[in-house]
Order: sequence, then C-alpha cells, then structure tokens
Amino acid sequence: MAATDSLEEFLATAVDAAKRAGEIIRNGFYRTKHVEHKGQVDLVTETDKACEDLIFNHLKQKYPEHNFIGEETTAANGVTELTDDPTWIVDPLDGTTNFVHGFPFVCVSIGLTIRQIPTVGVVYNPIMDELFTGILGKGAFLNGNPIKTSSQSELVKSLLATEVGTKRDRSTVDATTNRVNSLLFKVRSLRMSGSCALNLCGVACGRLDLFYELGFGGPWDVAGGAVIVKEAGGLVYDPSGKEFDITSQRIAASNSHLKYEFIEVLKKYA
Amino acid sequence: MAATDSLEEFLATAVDAAKRAGEIIRNGFYRTKHVEHKGQVDLVTETDKACEDLIFNHLKQKYPEHNFIGEETTAANGVTELTDDPTWIVDPLDGTTNFVHGFPFVCVSIGLTIRQIPTVGVVYNPIMDELFTGILGKGAFLNGNPIKTSSQSELVKSLLATEVGTKRDRSTVDATTNRVNSLLFKVRSLRMSGSCALNLCGVACGRLDLFYELGFGGPWDVAGGAVIVKEAGGLVYDPSGKEFDITSQRIAASNSHLKYEFIEVLKKYA
Repeated sequence: MAATDSLEEFLATAVDAAKRAGEIIRNGFYRTKHVEHKGQVDLVTETDKACEDLIFNHLKQKYPEHNFIGEETTAANGVTELTDDPTWIVDPLDGTTNFVHGFPFVCVSIGLTIRQIPTVGVVYNPIMDELFTGILGKGAFLNGNPIKTSSQSELVKSLLATEVGTKRDRSTVDATTNRVNSLLFKVRSLRMSGSCALNLCGVACGRLDLFYELGFGGPWDVAGGAVIVKEAGGLVYDPSGKEFDITSQRIAASNSHLKYEFIEVLKKYA
Repeated sequence: MAATDSLEEFLATAVDAAKRAGEIIRNGFYRTKHVEHKGQVDLVTETDKACEDLIFNHLKQKYPEHNFIGEETTAANGVTELTDDPTWIVDPLDGTTNFVHGFPFVCVSIGLTIRQIPTVGVVYNPIMDELFTGILGKGAFLNGNPIKTSSQSELVKSLLATEVGTKRDRSTVDATTNRVNSLLFKVRSLRMSGSCALNLCGVACGRLDLFYELGFGGPWDVAGGAVIVKEAGGLVYDPSGKEFDITSQRIAASNSHLKYEFIEVLKKYA
C-alpha cells in the first residue's frame, strides 16, 4: 500500500487534471456542440474525448507504472480487467446528456483503486465550481471544507436520488418504474440529476440521504464518488445488501443510519 | 392594460423583492433549519414565511391597489379567487424540500397577472445566482441575457422534467409512475429537480425540452415561470392539450416544435 503522503500527492495530481478538464467542459457547456451518437440516448461529445486525453496524459506522465481505465478507452477497446495494481478509473465527463442539453449537473470523476479498493477520489462540477475530494482514512471535502453525510435516520423523511439510465427495453423500463413506485411510499421525495458521480457526492455532503442506480455505464461512474461517500461517514453497498462490487454496475449509497431500511425496500426489486 | 413602462417598473420592483428574499434563502440554506411539517412530505420553514412577508410588504408598499396571492397566505386563509385586477402571485420559496435538504434547486417565484394573463415573471435561484425574468411582449432573460427555448424537434432526443409531487396515495403514485413509464419510451431522459418554477425556466433557457406536472401546490408555482417560457419562444399548455389554466394545478411546457407529439403521449395519462 502506498504511504499517505503519496496518496495526497496522487490526490493533488488528480485535482489538477480534473480542474484542467473542467475548463474544457465549462467552455464547451456554453457553446454549440458537435455530437456523435452511441445508440439512441447515449451521447458522447468531442469534449468527452478531449478531457479523457488530457486527464490520461497528465496522470500517465506522473505515474507511468499505474494502470488506467477510462470510459472512452473502454468503449473503444473493450473492458479492462481491474487488478490489485494502482489503477486510475476515469469518467472524463459524467452527465454527457446534461452537457449536451446544458443542464448544470456535469462533472469529471477520477478514482484511484489500490488492491481494488477505492482509495483516492475527485469529482469536479466545473459549472457549479464544486470540487469533491476524498482519500481513504483522511476524510472527504467540498472545496476544501470537510463534509459529512446527513444525520437523517427515518426513511420517510429522506430525499432519494436515482436515474432512469439509457436502456429502453420493456423489462428494464418496467423494473425502473416499479422500483420508483414502491420507493415513493417509503421516502420523502425523489431527485434525478443525470450524474451518478454527483449523486454519490450529494449523499456525501448530505444534500441527498439515499441513492441507488442499476445498470450504469461502468466503474468510472462510481470509482471517485465511492471513497468520497465513505470518507464522509456514509456507506456504499450493493442494492441487494451485499458488498459493493465496483465492476458490477450496481450501487446504493446512504448515510450509516438508513442502510438496512433502504435495502429492505430495494432488495425486493434489485 | 398597464403601459409597457409600468410593466418594466413592476419587473424592477419584483426583482428587487426577489433578490432581498434570495439573501434570506441563501443565509438559511447553509444553516440548521427549524422545520415545521404540513403533512408527511410537505415542509415549510421559517425562511418561507420570512420571505413571503418581505416580498408582500415590498410590493404592497409600492402597489397598495393591487391584489396578492401567496403560498403561505393561501395555506393560512384559504384560496383567493383570481380576478382581472393586477394580481401578484408569489411563491416565496419554491423547492422547500430541496431547501431543507440543501439541494441547490430552490428559488423565489413572483408573477404578475393582469386580466388573468401572466404578464411579468421573476424566478430567482439565490444558490446558483440565476435570475430569470420575463415581460409579456418584451422577451425573457437569464441574468440579463436573452434566452430562448431549445430548437429540438424530435421527442426521442428531448430531455424531460417532471416531479413526483407530495401525494402518496396509491392511485396518485401509480398514475405518476405509469406516465413516467410510457414517457421513457418516447424521450431521451428524465430529470427531477424538485422545483416547478425552475423546471419552467429550464425549458425557457433550453436546458430542458419538455416539462409537465400535475397536482402541484397552486398558481404561485407557475405564475412567474409561465410568462418566462412564453417570452423565450416556448409554449405553456394543459397536459391534455387544452389551454393552460393557471388555477388548475396542471401544466405542460415545451418549445414550439414538440407540443403536439408531447401531448399525444401525455393525454393518454393526464
């Protein structure tokens, strides 16, 4: 395991990359965009590619011996297996649909796993200028200020986030709306922001009490946010209640009080 | 009908009131809040009351001969009938659940109807410092810059917003998730921000292509946003396709291209 001072250096490098990529995102956000289509509802933009190149070049220059998994690279080259080696897992632009439409929930997400454990996390929303950071064992921060999950202990007073994803076959859509239907009887209200990484950070800083998503794109959506939630005092787990698996495309997150009530509802539909 | 220069004076007065109320909201947003409950999921805060008092005092001092309808006043005194007289319709804090949880979609909404027509609108999000304004026949603006609705003409490429409301009886919840289910096969994706007025402004500035909500609180949720959408080139109508009725607690909004396709889907479930 790397020493703590290396972890802080890793974080500083990742923050630097995220801020530079954020500039590209911010510039593109307010301009007309050239959009390519990957299926009907999944968009990827020039910005996405430019940001991944920038982040990977920045990280690889400093840490050539590390491994790298990125949304765009993986989409082009197929899935890269996660090993125990230090691995940077990057979503250069989470919330691409929001980016294309100009909806302000977009972010860069950078996570570093060591022995497959999310260890360093950076999630940066350049439109709202919110930088979420976390290092395993060293706390979580928003723009440098410590953050913690909410103290809410009642599901019925909790604010839940989820997403409808991009799959539009009958069984996926029915499963999505059936879960929402049953959860609406249990929680206060529901938000859909369009960014998995920012939903995790919303739980971390207590804006949201609960989040789950099934069938999101890949580990790049959650690698940064997972360590930020945990370091803010929250829990990250599989919606069935089992242990979180970063490669599973399934995640639930909450403060520490709500986990068992939440999975009681979720597991019937997950 | 008032002359245009009075409309601009009305707008300036409303902006002044909204910005002052916004300061109160911004201060409260980052502090612990004393929360009262109106039913299980409907919250109202000290801030809500302080903002309504401030806005009404400000407007009544300048326009004592006008009528006033406010969320808090109405909740306390019962429904005020909308007449042809100039009537200020105010939601001092739209997105109270967001306010309580610290989710950044909160706003002040101030609308002026003249002969029951939304004529002046101000929607101010003090957390993101976004001020949306509109005057009938004089355009719509975000922080002083002209805005217009999106140019999207295909439902399948459109970003839709709606809300799950506060009612949790079986038939309301089933109707809500059935509508969402069928719309997911027709649109690109779905957002829920928790603020009706900001959803309307999202359509106005093209961040969202489509919005509908049934069963929201009252005319104060839509009086400000309706004129902003129209002045941005959009349309506001009943989800059934009929004319918009500001007192009906039903609204749909879109750019001008999408209306007929949108209501074809909506009217089956509205």
